[in-house]
Amino acid sequence: MSFSGPFLAIDWGTTNRRAFLIEGGQVVRTERDDRGVTSVTDFAAEAAGIRSRFGDLPMLMAGMVGSNIGWRAAPYVPAPAGVEDLAANLLKIDDRTAIVPGVSVTGPADVMRGEEVQLLGAVAAGLVPHDALLAQPGTHCKWAEMEGGRIARFTTAMTGELFAMLRKYGLLSSQLTEEVTLGQAFLDGVEEGRKRDLAASLFGIRAAKLLGERPDSDAASFASGLLIGSDVAARLERVGHDEVHILADPVLGGLYSAAVEVHGRRAVRVDSHAAFVAGIIAIGSIS
Amino acid sequence: MSFSGPFLAIDWGTTNRRAFLIEGGQVVRTERDDRGVTSVTDFAAEAAGIRSRFGDLPMLMAGMVGSNIGWRAAPYVPAPAGVEDLAANLLKIDDRTAIVPGVSVTGPADVMRGEEVQLLGAVAAGLVPHDALLAQPGTHCKWAEMEGGRIARFTTAMTGELFAMLRKYGLLSSQLTEEVTLGQAFLDGVEEGRKRDLAASLFGIRAAKLLGERPDSDAASFASGLLIGSDVAARLERVGHDEVHILADPVLGGLYSAAVEVHGRRAVRVDSHAAFVAGIIAIGSIS
Repeated sequence: MSFSGPFLAIDWGTTNRRAFLIEGGQVVRTERDDRGVTSVTDFAAEAAGIRSRFGDLPMLMAGMVGSNIGWRAAPYVPAPAGVEDLAANLLKIDDRTAIVPGVSVTGPADVMRGEEVQLLGAVAAGLVPHDALLAQPGTHCKWAEMEGGRIARFTTAMTGELFAMLRKYGLLSSQLTEEVTLGQAFLDGVEEGRKRDLAASLFGIRAAKLLGERPDSDAASFASGLLIGSDVAARLERVGHDEVHILADPVLGGLYSAAVEVHGRRAVRVDSHAAFVAGIIAIGSIS
Repeated sequence: MSFSGPFLAIDWGTTNRRAFLIEGGQVVRTERDDRGVTSVTDFAAEAAGIRSRFGDLPMLMAGMVGSNIGWRAAPYVPAPAGVEDLAANLLKIDDRTAIVPGVSVTGPADVMRGEEVQLLGAVAAGLVPHDALLAQPGTHCKWAEMEGGRIARFTTAMTGELFAMLRKYGLLSSQLTEEVTLGQAFLDGVEEGRKRDLAASLFGIRAAKLLGERPDSDAASFASGLLIGSDVAARLERVGHDEVHILADPVLGGLYSAAVEVHGRRAVRVDSHAAFVAGIIAIGSIS
């Protein structure tokens, strides 16, 4: 199997999908849509569709497409894992179509699928040092420690999912209606998050309303700060890096950066799309 | 206003209601139904209905009936608060119908409404010492420190609400379908809860499934242990009492007791209905 010539790289997640046409180590065309794995039943037909639009080329995929709700379940490679480990464990659909494996750790158990390409790509592209702490905020925020350019260990926090759930259901939902902004209420939430006492701090949002201590216009920003702050506090307590390299969209990346800086570490923003492309090229080049 | 003769005591919560006919300091009749405040619009008609069944007597109510979703909003009495403070601040609906006020603390903000009667009643009835730590597990678990027989300060954790939400929505809902039992999986969850890193520990439930480390039959018990264990860990870190007095139904009381004992404190179970009755009699007797 060869991805050394032109090939198609697909970052195929739960709800979104991004396709890249790679030629000579460069992205020459890209397309993003909402055909994530939960919207797709016939993966072979989808792959054929991508080839009809981008060219009949080898295809290397990563993300939830390799899960048990995707095209086929790719293995997890145990950490520590580098580019070579992923390249050596591709799940081959056919002789020019493959899925990058996920990465797992045990004690405590954790898994990733898709994020590993960004992490290793960030190192491969020289966007982060070989030894570094990387964060990938989102529905499930990944925190990975890179050692010698490989994924040494990682932790996933369902910070984004908890926030979305609290906004939609239950006691606080009627209070958490406003947009989150990076202001004093968010920073107050980050401070509260230091307590690492989510269930009580969350009820405090209700109590602050009833006692007239905080307007509901600030409640969503405070809650976001609380959840992100708890996540950052728990991670930085155990990890000694002075810098945190953050791969996320500008809004969420800005919130995590602010929380990291409250904790006295330096936040460095990294282009997550560039990292993915560098990672998939690195894996493809030795497959 | 006098509740020194026979009177009706109503523990009127969000979803349930319990009425007691009190004569000579004893409960002579009681009735429980699901006419909580969210099921009721005409509170005067409900009160008349209770009087038609139990007798045309003075009525002293406590709980969410005194909230802004209840009959009328009773005030919050700031802690420290004792029986006298509540008795002096009843919200009078008419000359023989009143609602017990809630209790508040600030820095950080917290509120209770209904639990204060149980807490002060537990002391009044001699069920707990005048200086004690009490826990009232439930959707929103209250932890109160009593000093000199008064409510000195308290914290509410929305532990039960988070658990219910996780069972119903999102990533873990399909795993958390079994009944919670007090066994090794629950105790493992309590241990995990020591980390006070909920968002990551919760994702670990998913990862443990994917890596085959824990069967889904144990997932709900582990998750319950994790949430209760985090709550207990956060509270006991700051409070020095050797004993925790637990007012709850047998199942939830048993789970909290086990978690408290994992943390090396003694759990003492207290009859929450007896505490309520003693509290409402104590408040009524000096109103």
